[in-house]
Amino acid sequence: MAKQKPTLSARAAALPASPIRKFVPLADGAKKRGVRVYHLNIGQPDVPSPETFLKALSEYPNKIIAYGRSEGEVALREAYCEYYRRFGIDLSPGEILVTTGGSEALLFAFFCAAAAGEEIIVFEPFYTNYNGFAAVVGVTLKPLATEPGAGYHLPRRDVVEAAIGPRTRAIAICNPNNPTGTVYRDDELEMLAELARKHDLFIIADEVYREFVYDGQSHTSTLSLPAVAGRVVVTDSLSKRFSVCGARVGCLVSRNEEVVAAGLKLGQARLSPPVVEEFAATAALKLPPAEYVQPMIEKFERRRNVVYEAVAEMPGVAVHKPAGAFYTVPAFPVDDAEKFVAWMLTDFELDGATTMLAPAAGFYATPGRGTREARIAYVLEESELVHAMACLAEGLKQYPGRTA
Amino acid sequence: MAKQKPTLSARAAALPASPIRKFVPLADGAKKRGVRVYHLNIGQPDVPSPETFLKALSEYPNKIIAYGRSEGEVALREAYCEYYRRFGIDLSPGEILVTTGGSEALLFAFFCAAAAGEEIIVFEPFYTNYNGFAAVVGVTLKPLATEPGAGYHLPRRDVVEAAIGPRTRAIAICNPNNPTGTVYRDDELEMLAELARKHDLFIIADEVYREFVYDGQSHTSTLSLPAVAGRVVVTDSLSKRFSVCGARVGCLVSRNEEVVAAGLKLGQARLSPPVVEEFAATAALKLPPAEYVQPMIEKFERRRNVVYEAVAEMPGVAVHKPAGAFYTVPAFPVDDAEKFVAWMLTDFELDGATTMLAPAAGFYATPGRGTREARIAYVLEESELVHAMACLAEGLKQYPGRTA
Repeated sequence: MAKQKPTLSARAAALPASPIRKFVPLADGAKKRGVRVYHLNIGQPDVPSPETFLKALSEYPNKIIAYGRSEGEVALREAYCEYYRRFGIDLSPGEILVTTGGSEALLFAFFCAAAAGEEIIVFEPFYTNYNGFAAVVGVTLKPLATEPGAGYHLPRRDVVEAAIGPRTRAIAICNPNNPTGTVYRDDELEMLAELARKHDLFIIADEVYREFVYDGQSHTSTLSLPAVAGRVVVTDSLSKRFSVCGARVGCLVSRNEEVVAAGLKLGQARLSPPVVEEFAATAALKLPPAEYVQPMIEKFERRRNVVYEAVAEMPGVAVHKPAGAFYTVPAFPVDDAEKFVAWMLTDFELDGATTMLAPAAGFYATPGRGTREARIAYVLEESELVHAMACLAEGLKQYPGRTA
Repeated sequence: MAKQKPTLSARAAALPASPIRKFVPLADGAKKRGVRVYHLNIGQPDVPSPETFLKALSEYPNKIIAYGRSEGEVALREAYCEYYRRFGIDLSPGEILVTTGGSEALLFAFFCAAAAGEEIIVFEPFYTNYNGFAAVVGVTLKPLATEPGAGYHLPRRDVVEAAIGPRTRAIAICNPNNPTGTVYRDDELEMLAELARKHDLFIIADEVYREFVYDGQSHTSTLSLPAVAGRVVVTDSLSKRFSVCGARVGCLVSRNEEVVAAGLKLGQARLSPPVVEEFAATAALKLPPAEYVQPMIEKFERRRNVVYEAVAEMPGVAVHKPAGAFYTVPAFPVDDAEKFVAWMLTDFELDGATTMLAPAAGFYATPGRGTREARIAYVLEESELVHAMACLAEGLKQYPGRTA
């Protein structure tokens, strides 16, 4: 019998399923059985998008939904400049390339920084979707471990430097960090900047959670480091700070004009970002922080407290208090976090509800690491988080693969 | 002095600028001088988007613009099934992956079909943005010439077969064709199907212009070829048929479940398509063809006639009558079409207006081909096309680099 279909490209066959999304069918199954699922697996806040964003959507003025500019609409890039200026960062619209979500900015940054087969250093655990973008453009992610005992702060300078080889082209950080919640100190950023200068590297900085910083701490953007102005590529997104994850509006920012020019060529191939969302995003960026972002951050700090305090009390669970973003990645006393997460959806409920987490192995590139960890996104109301944590605590007690 | 910035990755530095978009700054300059520019460089129709699409946008019901499903919203995939059924194509929602425009569907298809360094056969001239997507995923496009004298129909079977080598993984077609306007005959599709079976290849079919077929001809989808059901990957978009280019909603369709599963993993990395536009797209797909698409196609057939008849009368210009899509790619009596297109924007006007085309060299992969050709997109009202063609005719007379 003739072969009925070709084999997938090896790299396509090797793609990992997102640990954030792969158990969605199991969650669907739980819901069909009438079980409420607390979705702490995905960074999807329950906070309503700004009224001004929704209003702009409903008032989109054009009768033709036409291609926008590949680099993003002028008004949106100007609004971005105004936004960054609030952080003391002066940019021109030509240093900003609007992208279809922060996702596309990461894809463009990886492609521009490294050739196929070259390396980008990342710190484990890292945002799992870096794996997908690296696979698409054929770049190797070289992982360096960070440890809960050190608050997931960066390794010492000599450790980072030892990882830099002839094929290394960039160091990528996520700050505040997804999934650890760590906010890097200025001395850590300076260390990276020095190494980038010494070894002629790019610094790719995912600063999507810039405002999500707690306990009165502050966040330093890599765009504020003048010594590496030509080396920094920031990837950003409106998804979290305006709770518009489904809008797919982000940007790539760099003072390296070659990066922006190459990114624009990639942007021309995909023609333009979604223009209706660009229009609404322009309105959202002009919102004074006190009207939307600040109260939301205060809400997330309270949520952080609820989750951290609950998890810290669970027997056998090791958790580090996150200082930013809205994630934490505890280690659980289970045989395999992936099995545990699945079991919580297929075999467990408490008062008609269960909690869905994202198994953390996919947030590591080193095989065997993170297999007992899972990421918690504290993106729901406090009262729901209380119940979700009760489900988690009880699930840990009942789980047959419990190890301690 | 220390180096201030790293060198771009070689592949980023080598990216071509889109021939459709690269002269936008010159067009901006012309407009600043008060010159009206007829944008025939880009496939952006002037037709208003359907009322039902605009209405849905303004009525998006959710207060949180949340991530959608990575595979696309259920309602949209069901609406796609209904849409394809009108063409006699039976699909299940699981065979449809919603993408951020047809662009993303092409990127996913290339990645899944071929590994880095493997080849996809394309027919020159081809949609220029294939170059960008091939560069991103490191795939080599292997060009085979089609000729205006043969109506840009496919080469003979033996010519195509001779191009298939050990690294060939797919044959990609665009049908109806951008930029030639050619609609492939059933015997051509059968020829490709036979070769795909014999040599175990994918067929990637860009069918964005499915409905844009004139002179009473019909279009056959590769999804209607049962012998290659497991080999066909169709890339599609709502951009043209509903004049919603800026919405960025398209899809990848395949009965090969491995392709859809791998595409979904890529989709999970980028999280979801833009959800507000997905909502509006669902409404548009349910429109009866007689209410929107059919009258639009009749309009484009009249536009085709206006442009074809005008260009055919221009001395020294060779043009083939396009049977579908809304492009034609004539050869002009000029030294270099790129210089001519630029000159029309910087040095020419007729009655306060000029015409912008897309130089065609970027629609070829073979160096030196297409250098005297430019693509015309007949996307404006007939009265405007008449004036745009008058500008083109006069520009050709005055252009200092005229060769015949």
